[in-house]
Amino acid sequence: MMDRLTPHDIFVVLLSLATLLLVARGAGELARRVNQPAVLGEIVAGILLGPTLLGRLAPEAYVFLFPQTGHAAIVLQGLSAVGVILFLLVAGLEVDLSMIWRQGRSAATVSITGIAVPFLLGLIAAWTAADAFGREAGADPWLFALFFATALSISALPVIARTLMDLDLYRTDFGMVVIAAAVVNDLLGWLIFAVLLAMMGGPSAQAGVGWTIVLTLAFATFVLTAGRWMMDRVLPWLQAHTSWPGGVLGFALSAALFGAAATEWIGVHAVFGSFLVGVALGDSIHLREQTRATIDRFVGSFFAPLFFATIGLNVDFVANFDPMLSLLVLAIACTGKVLGCAAGARAARISSREAWAMGVSLNARGAMEIILGLLALQNGIIGARLFVALVFMALVTSIAPGPCIQRILGRRRVRRFVDYLVPKAFIPRLASTDRREVISELCRTIAPATGRSAQLLEDAVWNREQTMSTGLEQGLAIPHARIPGLAAPLVGLGLSFGGVDFDAYDGEPARIIVLILTPEDDRGVQVNLLADIARTLKDPELRTKVLHVTNATELLALIRTEAPPPA
Amino acid sequence: MMDRLTPHDIFVVLLSLATLLLVARGAGELARRVNQPAVLGEIVAGILLGPTLLGRLAPEAYVFLFPQTGHAAIVLQGLSAVGVILFLLVAGLEVDLSMIWRQGRSAATVSITGIAVPFLLGLIAAWTAADAFGREAGADPWLFALFFATALSISALPVIARTLMDLDLYRTDFGMVVIAAAVVNDLLGWLIFAVLLAMMGGPSAQAGVGWTIVLTLAFATFVLTAGRWMMDRVLPWLQAHTSWPGGVLGFALSAALFGAAATEWIGVHAVFGSFLVGVALGDSIHLREQTRATIDRFVGSFFAPLFFATIGLNVDFVANFDPMLSLLVLAIACTGKVLGCAAGARAARISSREAWAMGVSLNARGAMEIILGLLALQNGIIGARLFVALVFMALVTSIAPGPCIQRILGRRRVRRFVDYLVPKAFIPRLASTDRREVISELCRTIAPATGRSAQLLEDAVWNREQTMSTGLEQGLAIPHARIPGLAAPLVGLGLSFGGVDFDAYDGEPARIIVLILTPEDDRGVQVNLLADIARTLKDPELRTKVLHVTNATELLALIRTEAPPPA
Repeated sequence: MMDRLTPHDIFVVLLSLATLLLVARGAGELARRVNQPAVLGEIVAGILLGPTLLGRLAPEAYVFLFPQTGHAAIVLQGLSAVGVILFLLVAGLEVDLSMIWRQGRSAATVSITGIAVPFLLGLIAAWTAADAFGREAGADPWLFALFFATALSISALPVIARTLMDLDLYRTDFGMVVIAAAVVNDLLGWLIFAVLLAMMGGPSAQAGVGWTIVLTLAFATFVLTAGRWMMDRVLPWLQAHTSWPGGVLGFALSAALFGAAATEWIGVHAVFGSFLVGVALGDSIHLREQTRATIDRFVGSFFAPLFFATIGLNVDFVANFDPMLSLLVLAIACTGKVLGCAAGARAARISSREAWAMGVSLNARGAMEIILGLLALQNGIIGARLFVALVFMALVTSIAPGPCIQRILGRRRVRRFVDYLVPKAFIPRLASTDRREVISELCRTIAPATGRSAQLLEDAVWNREQTMSTGLEQGLAIPHARIPGLAAPLVGLGLSFGGVDFDAYDGEPARIIVLILTPEDDRGVQVNLLADIARTLKDPELRTKVLHVTNATELLALIRTEAPPPA
Repeated sequence: MMDRLTPHDIFVVLLSLATLLLVARGAGELARRVNQPAVLGEIVAGILLGPTLLGRLAPEAYVFLFPQTGHAAIVLQGLSAVGVILFLLVAGLEVDLSMIWRQGRSAATVSITGIAVPFLLGLIAAWTAADAFGREAGADPWLFALFFATALSISALPVIARTLMDLDLYRTDFGMVVIAAAVVNDLLGWLIFAVLLAMMGGPSAQAGVGWTIVLTLAFATFVLTAGRWMMDRVLPWLQAHTSWPGGVLGFALSAALFGAAATEWIGVHAVFGSFLVGVALGDSIHLREQTRATIDRFVGSFFAPLFFATIGLNVDFVANFDPMLSLLVLAIACTGKVLGCAAGARAARISSREAWAMGVSLNARGAMEIILGLLALQNGIIGARLFVALVFMALVTSIAPGPCIQRILGRRRVRRFVDYLVPKAFIPRLASTDRREVISELCRTIAPATGRSAQLLEDAVWNREQTMSTGLEQGLAIPHARIPGLAAPLVGLGLSFGGVDFDAYDGEPARIIVLILTPEDDRGVQVNLLADIARTLKDPELRTKVLHVTNATELLALIRTEAPPPA
């Protein structure tokens, strides 16, 4: 007799998937709103839908939606397992092996001290006070200490890369050293953890731990040498002879699943295999940006949110939250990592300011930490209390880097003019046809948002306009002024089909007129916004589309989707 | 106690997923090689991996890889269920409701007769000879007859759209009428089938069949009116205020899953819900091409192959193949559909030639038919014999249209110059620096593939060259000639860093020199290829990349991935 999903099973699976996805993506978006990585929100979404909140408020709904037994539970576990495997594929794709060679000595030094110091701290702490850190009763003390040390020394490449991109530091020397160090850190961390998992024994563990470790190392070496060489040969062939991009996508996903199956068979977790396949694949110069982006997008908007949300479904984060333990773990983790990295950076003759910024950047744990913790929990090495403390530590260290680096290096986020657009100050059809009147019309609509009188704004903008016209080429004009005491920049935008003479260089009348008001004391922001507008509206096709927009939401949607920010 | 996937379960799931994906995608690519839809190959892949072949040759491997019981079986079923639901989302996205209004009367006539005739034929056949057509012993005769009639009258929008695109007919009047008719056909067919499923009774069927039908119609009406209106409002908001494209993707997938859950709860199959959500979503002018493409790509390269391959896993297509039944079903299906559509088209005053071509186009059943059949099989309405006959009919009717339309309308496939490139006649660095010598060099390398002497080719090309230079603008030259008795066009390509004087209009020396040899009697192909080369290599960035290519595979890969064919 065959095991079959009943219609009711399918109904429950679909409803819980839809709910998980909606809540996780929603919370992920909220997290990004406050400039945090999306994964943070996704994990919190799972905590809300799990025993921590939904299970308390509406236990029946919780048990119905996320059953712990039966076919629906098994399908959810399977999807979540595939989800984390594909997430690690994406993480692997981001690893750039050649960068490690280029950044050479600095990266190696930072990464080795950045692993060694927290590892040693963790080893000592877990060995001397295993019970305080929540070792499970039956767990091997060595295994526990090694796991704890590994958990403290791992980094989260995706979170770190995202933070650096947000601050426009990714392509700087500083950024490259940090990323290279994080890559080495990831590779070493996962290798150590793979060995730990081997020590726990997998399905092929009859042959003994030694054998599993040998197999793991052999597999890793094989994928990163012969596998890498093969990918580099197979990719151009696939692109030339199979449908694009389906052929390459199918191959990449299938390779990741085979890699995952291989490591699962060896006895280390499946995620290690797909991570290695990702590294080998991402290293090929023949992997096109479009392939990477498609995998990244689909995994990021479907599989990853599902996986991260399911983490919270099985653990009660309130009942198992131990404030002392959580703070202790956080303190050791931060001290070890920041000190270790900064010391390494100083040894590599990096300036003291940048050395500290590197320590803070590499301190981010994020998703990797949580995956590691979950595996340890499932394998009985740690209990729920330490797991919750690790999740807490991962979340806090992922939130911190952005603001800290901003402060240490004095960097600001990349600013785009649409971020400051006042919705009410979008005028789809300007009534005025004359330069002075248009400025007056825009100032009147934006005035309520500034808390200043329209007359004051108009005078300031008109004064600036008279020193030199703000009409740029091709129908774009950007009247602007600095306004004393303004808290943040404000932007208005008006469209004129007939065009308004702004005395432009090329004689074209202005059809898109952007008004920019900036605080008087922030000199950089005005230049940034002017440059952003010019760059964003450079494309004639986009300018035509902007002219046909009818409200501020559509304008925002258009700019966000068709003129992505500089990478 | 919680049900948990063991490492062995996960290993089996990963290995079977990886195998299914690799074999299905591979077979899909082979199908496309011979100009057939990929789904054809994917279904055949499943048949090869299922009891039909692998189960016979290596029963132990088959049972290990694709277990019928246990957790791994359940996870595979769950993934395949999510796969078909997302596939129907994509099918829904392709439906353009406004096109139905635009094509108005013609489309309506073609589609209604195209449904009515095969439906009546099927009804009569199934009613008069239910046993001959393989009705299951316990099945309701009315239900069986209605199902059989529906199965004969459905079309496969994706297959039809793909065939029309291949023949460059998609954006013609002919193509639009066919697509509009197929859309109406799809909507009606699925609605009828939803009602049938309701008659079988779902989880909420206690309330009676009548109630389920009312709920189904109410849900469909709601999604296509209020739901459509809402999507149109939500999409710009998401694009403006959430991360791009993750926010929209997450919303679309979650909406599809909610829709699927709703119809599953009503008691009709989940696929109907995601199809309707797809229609509503695809109808919004705010849905960006990039969102559609990302969903399409990922579903097409992961979920769809998994689903279609699993179809073959559970049925023995050899033991259940009944040649008489299969041919009978095929005959009724084709007669009804082709005659019905052609009659409708004639009534709408479409020329006789085009009317027949429409009948043949709309005759394609493809994936939809098979999904329908699978549901009927799982619900015990039909047996394995009729299911196999339906799959046979779906495959044959999907293969036929392409060649038939080509013959009836005299249309040819869109031809691209890289399709005819002779790998050996790619010269990354031309030795010659003079026009005559370059032509001679290219002719010498391509000669073996033509079965002609290099001298003969060179004379023909040089004669043509002397009537007027083939040097185009911006460093591109396309020497060419018609060669008597050549079976198919042949293309060679040489690169010259120094450039060769081809007496071009703009005085630029030629750096990319493409040699085209075409059969003497096929006048159209030469013009097509010249236009394709000019269009493909128009982009300066692509030309620069072409100059750095080192072998024919890389060239093919570059053109296929970065210069997609005209849609």
